[in-house]
This record gives sequence, C-alpha cells and structure tokens, in this order.
Amino acid sequence: MMNKTIAVLFAAAVTSATCLAQGSQTVAEDFKPSTLNQPGQEYPQVNSQGYARFRIKAPQADSVKVSLGLGGRGGTKLVKGTDGFWTGTTDGPLDEGFHYYHLTVDGGTFNDPGTLNYYGSVRWESGIEIPAHDQDFYALKDVPHGHVQQILFPSKSTQTSRRAFVYTPPGYEKETSKKYPVLYLQHGWGEDETAWTNQGRANLIMDNLIAEGKIKPFIIVMTYGMTNEVKWGRIKEFRIEPFQTVLVDELIPYMDANFRTLADRSNRAMAGLSMGGMETRTITLNKPEVFGAYALLSGGVYTPDDLNGKSKAKLIFLSCGSKENPDRVNKAAADLKAAGYNVVSYVSDKTAHEFQTWRRSLRELAPLLFK
Amino acid sequence: MMNKTIAVLFAAAVTSATCLAQGSQTVAEDFKPSTLNQPGQEYPQVNSQGYARFRIKAPQADSVKVSLGLGGRGGTKLVKGTDGFWTGTTDGPLDEGFHYYHLTVDGGTFNDPGTLNYYGSVRWESGIEIPAHDQDFYALKDVPHGHVQQILFPSKSTQTSRRAFVYTPPGYEKETSKKYPVLYLQHGWGEDETAWTNQGRANLIMDNLIAEGKIKPFIIVMTYGMTNEVKWGRIKEFRIEPFQTVLVDELIPYMDANFRTLADRSNRAMAGLSMGGMETRTITLNKPEVFGAYALLSGGVYTPDDLNGKSKAKLIFLSCGSKENPDRVNKAAADLKAAGYNVVSYVSDKTAHEFQTWRRSLRELAPLLFK
Repeated sequence: MMNKTIAVLFAAAVTSATCLAQGSQTVAEDFKPSTLNQPGQEYPQVNSQGYARFRIKAPQADSVKVSLGLGGRGGTKLVKGTDGFWTGTTDGPLDEGFHYYHLTVDGGTFNDPGTLNYYGSVRWESGIEIPAHDQDFYALKDVPHGHVQQILFPSKSTQTSRRAFVYTPPGYEKETSKKYPVLYLQHGWGEDETAWTNQGRANLIMDNLIAEGKIKPFIIVMTYGMTNEVKWGRIKEFRIEPFQTVLVDELIPYMDANFRTLADRSNRAMAGLSMGGMETRTITLNKPEVFGAYALLSGGVYTPDDLNGKSKAKLIFLSCGSKENPDRVNKAAADLKAAGYNVVSYVSDKTAHEFQTWRRSLRELAPLLFK
Repeated sequence: MMNKTIAVLFAAAVTSATCLAQGSQTVAEDFKPSTLNQPGQEYPQVNSQGYARFRIKAPQADSVKVSLGLGGRGGTKLVKGTDGFWTGTTDGPLDEGFHYYHLTVDGGTFNDPGTLNYYGSVRWESGIEIPAHDQDFYALKDVPHGHVQQILFPSKSTQTSRRAFVYTPPGYEKETSKKYPVLYLQHGWGEDETAWTNQGRANLIMDNLIAEGKIKPFIIVMTYGMTNEVKWGRIKEFRIEPFQTVLVDELIPYMDANFRTLADRSNRAMAGLSMGGMETRTITLNKPEVFGAYALLSGGVYTPDDLNGKSKAKLIFLSCGSKENPDRVNKAAADLKAAGYNVVSYVSDKTAHEFQTWRRSLRELAPLLFK
C-alpha cells in the first residue's frame, strides 16, 4: 500500500506543475516588496494580481534565471539592464501563498539575496509570498501569542540529541496546573522541523484560532521525519522504522515527561503533509494505541481495509489542494464514512501541492481535534 | 561618551581585519566538510590547520570570489575547473571559530549554496566553522538540554508583536516552584536575535556549564536591538531610546509576568557584544535600578566617572579578543578596580572581533553572575 500512495503523490505533484495556463491580462504596475524579503530589500516584489518580479545584481553574468516551484509557473528568464541588474516578471499570476524558488546564475544554483531562506528540496531555498484573499487567518495580530521552543531530546536509537520545535499555547506558562492535548505534525520530503512554523505559520494559525475561541488550546510538536535519509526519486528506499522509533519511543516520552501533556491516546493526534502524511499513515496504522486522531494533508488516504481490525480512530482528516487530486480524497472520505468512521475531508480552493493548502488544512483540522 | 566608544569599536574591527600574516606552511590535504554545511553538502571544507577550501558550481561564470569576514583572511579567488566547478583554498589558516562570508559571482553577491546562513551585516550570510582547540565547551553533548523558545511579546511603543528567544535551563519545566535569575544578552550591529544561539551556541554553552556544576542555572533573553535602524558607517545616528523602551518597559515586564523569574535588580543582568555592548553600557548607566551586573563583550568600557553617582553594580565584566584592543579593556578594569568596583576582565587568545571571542566571553561571564 505504501508504494501505491507514493506513486499517487508523485502524480499529483507532476500534474499541478504542468497545469500552468498562460495569462493574457495587463500586468498592474503596483508591485510591492514580498513580505518575506530580508530587512531593507526591495526585491522580489509582488503585484495585486499575484505576479512576481525579480531583480538581481550580477553585472558580469551571462544568464540569470528564476526557477519557481509548484504553482509558481516554472522558470522566468531575467534580462540584464545597463545598470548591471537582471530583471524579470512571471508570465502570469502565481497561486496564492508561499512558494520556494532559486536562481540559476551562469549555470550555478544560488538563492536570491533579497529574500529569506526556507528549508525545502533538501536545501535552504528562497521564498516568496503571494498575498492570499484569506491571509488574515495566518497574520501576525495583536492577540496573545503562544511560544515556539526548540528542544533537544535524547535519542538512543540515533545516538544523538535530536531537535524538535514545540508550540505551547498562550497562557501555558501561567496556568501551571492545566494539561494539554498534543498534535505531532510532520513536514514534507526535503523539508525539516522548521517548515511548519516558518513556511506554514502554524503558531500564528493557532494563536488566531485560540483568540477567536474556535479551538481548544493544544500543544504542537514538530520534529525531523527523514531519519532514514532518501533522495527524491528513490523514496521506495524509505523505511519508516527509524523515524517511528524516534517519534514513539523517544520524543513522545520526552514530551510527556517535560511538558504538561494529557498523555493518552485520545489526547494525542498525528498529522503530516505530503511525505509526512505517508509517515502519519504508516505510523498510525502500526501504532493505533498511541494516536487517537489521524490527518493526511496531501499525503495519501486510508481505506476501510487499512483500518480493518485496528482500534478505531476518533477522527480521520484527509485534505489536498484543488489542483492536486481532490476526487481521490473525497472518494476515500466517502468510503470511510460508509464504513462507519468519523472522517472529514477538505479541499483547498485553487492551490496545489504547496503550503497554502497545508496552512488551510491546519485551520480546518484544529477545531476538530480533541473533542 | 557614546561616540568615543563607537570610534574605538570601529578601530578595533579595522585593525583585526588587516592583521593578516602570510602563511608559508605546507597545506595538509586532510580537508573535511565544515560542520555548518547544509545536509549532504561536501563543501566548504576545513583542514586540520584551519585552512578553508571552497567549491562552487557555476560553469558559465567569468569570476567567483569568496569574501571572508574579520579573522577570515579577506578574499579568496576561485579558479574554474573543466567540470564547471570553481575551487580555491585560503592563503593561510583562519582564526578558530565561526566566520561569516559570501560569494561574489560575476559581480553579484550570493551565498554559498553548500552551507547554512547566519544573520550578520544586515543580511543572511554564509557561515563556516573552524574547529577550535577548546570547542568542547560549546559542543552538543549527551547532557540535559535547556530549551530555546521564540516568544512574541506585545510592544506598544513599536506597535507590533516583537520576537525574542528565551533560553530556559534544563529542568525549568519540571521544577515548577523554582524561580530563576535572568541575563538579557544582545547581538552586534547587523545581527539579530538569532545570533547568540545560532552563531554563538549560547544554549549549548549554558547546558555544558550547568552539567559540569560550574554555574547557577539562569534564563537568557535575546531580542533585536536595532529598533532604530542604522546603516554601518552611520552609527552616530543611532538613538538608544526606542530600544531601551522596548527592553525595559515592554520585554522585562513580559518576561517577569510569563516566566518564573527572580524579578529584582540583583537577579537581572545585561550583556552585549560589539554594538550590543554599547547598548548595554548606555542602558545600564541610564537604568542602574534595573540591572545588577553589566557585561561588555568587545563593546567598549566603563570608566569610574561613568559610574560615579550611580548605584553600584554588583559585577562589571569587560572582554575582547587578543586581536582587538586588550590593553584598553585591561586598563579600564584596573581603573575600575582601583575605584572599588567588582570588575573582571577577560581576553580571548588569538581571536578577533568575532564570535569565538564572544562564546568564550559567555563561558567566562556565566559563572560570575548572580552570586
């Protein structure tokens, strides 16, 4: 079943990358610096229609190209001006939300010095943010903020201290007798434990949902899931056991010993995006006694057969972007519902295999958890 | 007094940058990947003598140069091989510890795609680590680890939520009735609140000192100190008031309300490196009732006149690298001692205006605090 899931994930990714319609609209000249730019940097810029414009200094270069990820309309060749700066605009609007990209300068791969870097594709990539119509739910607002802390937990199986990030909700430090449920939340292939807060803004999504009274506060734990390193295209070599040991036998006990957690199955959930969804699927099926709710975000599906004979999940959540394979998610949800499971599916409108899909998925998932 | 301090800081920086002796030793061919490389990246590399070797893919480029910061022996021109990779080795060993650098590719400034990025010079720069003879004190070891948490605290004066990082010592979460002293620790010009943990490894230095029983555990708080943005070379335009308001009127009250702090002067210290030392100096003189111990790391000195009429500091700590201006630090310490102050000075051997000086300074300072 694992390999079938992988194949479908790949297909979804390839499809969304090639669904790039040519735009024919007039480009609005209202470009502003992307919100992810480094301090004081004017470029890259984004206009009100979602076009991106790049500007790179490289006076002696022969060619400078921008390679955008999924939903990013592929490559944009920049043109050199007399001032030694290379400039170019995408040939159409990008999808709303976050995109990874990098530059190719004279045949070498570099990041845009204008913007912040985000770990994806097994490297720190440049990032650009296209303002979304619904960006309010992940905005930094004047509400109480939870903390995100880096922990180093002992891992005998990998013979090192491993890093995780822990979101604790506002008030965690003050309400010293209160205990909280925990969501273990995984990144995708080529990303790491920084992705869900940096690219995903998971902490701000939580802060805002809590401030609006829409969810019961809970802790989120994010760690590195590629314990068994694999290269893109060789994912068949991935083995779940090393990561499952780190997560279930090392990280969860550390969390339950060092944080005020509600340390039982019904107060513990696992979710992941893309490859992190595959990991979630496999580990929740291997360890049904550990997790009470399972969520796969653009990360495959469960069938009633998968769950047959396992202890029943309290909640199953399946999601993806409308530019991925929503029919598969919706059909899987219908099949599970018919088999008596408590399942919720969600399709993010006009987004692909990218973080805007997963930000929205977390917003939809959070209110359903730990009821 | 402020401007005089600034001038001396600049002079120290310029001196150390030009003190580059030419090496004549044979280069040992035992290069290994720098410990700061991105996952799976073979270059940059460092040999047992402290030479650095770089390798950059840019097949169509006309020139690729490495610019190393202070203690980094200036520029290294790379040479193109037939495989399209540019390679080069520094013309001598670098100082021990951390160095910032960047590439110039055909006239444009880019980071080395092989290594991690660190915020310095008002941009995310490439970083390389030269193994030090004393690197054990900031190594990641199998000891209990404190947590480093990102907080977003409300700041009315700047009308936003501001970020800080808070180190809490091992056991903070479990010993729920214990309260801790607090050190407010500032970065240098062009850096930000990520510097002391990323470049400085402050959390590992603390974990190791605590595991060895050498210090009384305390909390460290690191926030952004350039509230009033200034460009390098225009530091005379820097005004301390906006940052002093954020620190004293907003961050300290937030810490005392949300963490288990000992919230009095004798249990609160301030320290900073370089420009952060200047800030420490000014704020401790403006607010002697707030801080009980003051530390300037390559960040100027106090004179007895400065302190005259102010409430007496419990401890004054002054440090710098031996390649900076140690005579000035030692003379200031002697003058303060003669005037009856409890002062400790420290000179880091064979280091310049760089993070190895400040890692060592924190190691020396921590055992002296909160006695």
